[in-house]
Amino acid sequence: MAFTTKATIASFGGKLYKLTHDSPTTGTPMAVNLYLPQCFSPQKKPAPLLIYLSGLTCTPDNCSEKGFLQHRASALGLAILYPDTSPRGLNLPNETASWDFGAGAGFYLDATAPPWNKNYRMASYITQDLPSTLFSDAEFGPYLAGPDKVAITGHSMGGHGALTLYLKNPGLYQSVSAFAPIANPGKCPWGEKAFSGYFGGGEGEREGVWKRHDATELVKGWKKEDRGDLKALVDVGTGDQFYKQGQLLPENLERAAEGAGVEGLTVRYQEGYDHSYYFMASFSDDHVNHAAKHLGLL
Amino acid sequence: MAFTTKATIASFGGKLYKLTHDSPTTGTPMAVNLYLPQCFSPQKKPAPLLIYLSGLTCTPDNCSEKGFLQHRASALGLAILYPDTSPRGLNLPNETASWDFGAGAGFYLDATAPPWNKNYRMASYITQDLPSTLFSDAEFGPYLAGPDKVAITGHSMGGHGALTLYLKNPGLYQSVSAFAPIANPGKCPWGEKAFSGYFGGGEGEREGVWKRHDATELVKGWKKEDRGDLKALVDVGTGDQFYKQGQLLPENLERAAEGAGVEGLTVRYQEGYDHSYYFMASFSDDHVNHAAKHLGLL
Repeated sequence: MAFTTKATIASFGGKLYKLTHDSPTTGTPMAVNLYLPQCFSPQKKPAPLLIYLSGLTCTPDNCSEKGFLQHRASALGLAILYPDTSPRGLNLPNETASWDFGAGAGFYLDATAPPWNKNYRMASYITQDLPSTLFSDAEFGPYLAGPDKVAITGHSMGGHGALTLYLKNPGLYQSVSAFAPIANPGKCPWGEKAFSGYFGGGEGEREGVWKRHDATELVKGWKKEDRGDLKALVDVGTGDQFYKQGQLLPENLERAAEGAGVEGLTVRYQEGYDHSYYFMASFSDDHVNHAAKHLGLL
Repeated sequence: MAFTTKATIASFGGKLYKLTHDSPTTGTPMAVNLYLPQCFSPQKKPAPLLIYLSGLTCTPDNCSEKGFLQHRASALGLAILYPDTSPRGLNLPNETASWDFGAGAGFYLDATAPPWNKNYRMASYITQDLPSTLFSDAEFGPYLAGPDKVAITGHSMGGHGALTLYLKNPGLYQSVSAFAPIANPGKCPWGEKAFSGYFGGGEGEREGVWKRHDATELVKGWKKEDRGDLKALVDVGTGDQFYKQGQLLPENLERAAEGAGVEGLTVRYQEGYDHSYYFMASFSDDHVNHAAKHLGLL
């Protein structure tokens, strides 16, 4: 499925492409932004890719405008992919009734409960459909180094997405980072609401499928002997209202990794920072550098 | 008149303060954002100030979120002031009927035509009221180097504001820069509409007060022997729709300066860039460096 280019915008020496494509995974058109850095071309060195997963309510545009990732990525020669946060426009019951469930709140999982299970399949979309479409695309594919050179990051719900997709798919991403991630969704109100809706909220689901989509549970199963240490950087602001409300729970992730003897997770608590893009942008350079290091650019 | 702090936000190692104060110049409450860089304190070295004037429709928040001036300013130790673009909430006839006149479109001049002349006095507000309030403020004043260490910049209508306030007030600002400025407002639709409304559109006004608020006319009167060369940097995107429509006219400014033998104006045409914050943010580092150089930080 080819991309349709809705806009091409010069940014920090490179180009931001606002794209749409028809996804067989979600059964809907999907919006996605692609940033190609300056000085790259198929004839020169193609660019590794950093996938950025956005938080609740966001479209591909929020971080493209406010995240500041392009600044450092362009200097280093890193491409960035900004997917949307859910399918849209399906008119499922209550799809747009909440800001933290349904449209704009896909949680980067494949739903199993109806009516969501047909289209809300963001895990498969992000890990398979979108990258295979992109890397095989006649226009954009040649600019990219390909599936062996991909890292992932995200903010809030997207931080949950980045951490869980990294932990569930060893080897798929060369590194992971997260800004203020929902690090233990099975134990916080946002995650409980989303998982109850997308998976069901019975005891069986809570002990089964919920734990397979929760970074704090998944990290316990990370096998160093197979996979090496984690390549994981997390930043959380100490002034973040959602951190204070117990929606993020990064300490649970830290304790789980420590308890399981899993190394390579760095969690930094940034004094006074909030949950917004002001926070995210302030540490964008660090997260781009983290990905670039594991993608061979630094 | 003291400031009321509506929010304090950590950003790039410093703090962004969302403020309001009662302005005797506009007769209204005025919103303004102040950014103080990291590592500065009254006991250490106080920070020079860069004033950023926003474009049509903007509030102090747009550039604070999307402009990325804070990134480089914080590293260099430069404070930034983001004023609003007009008084608001006066309920004057047609005050909010247009996006390019009235609220959000004050054009950084003191209106002479009723009903605007009482409150739409943004030139006096920006050059006198706001800085004197800020530098004498008990909380924020001590962090700032004061009135001898101020530079000015702006985008679109704010680029017009920065250029004209610099040219009309020699010595007040140590340098000026502009992103996609309305460089010859007397000759473009945006400027003709604004000047007709704020000053009147008769032949006398066009030959008089209009020319005293038009960078292309003002630059002809710049006296090198009194004031030295201009310290002026301008960037314009060649893909800017408003540039292509003849709203910006930077070539007129260049020709006027050249014709008058005025030196120190650098105008750069940036290939493919548009009029948006994507453009502005891409060259923020350059404009911060330009101000920092003339403020003694580089």
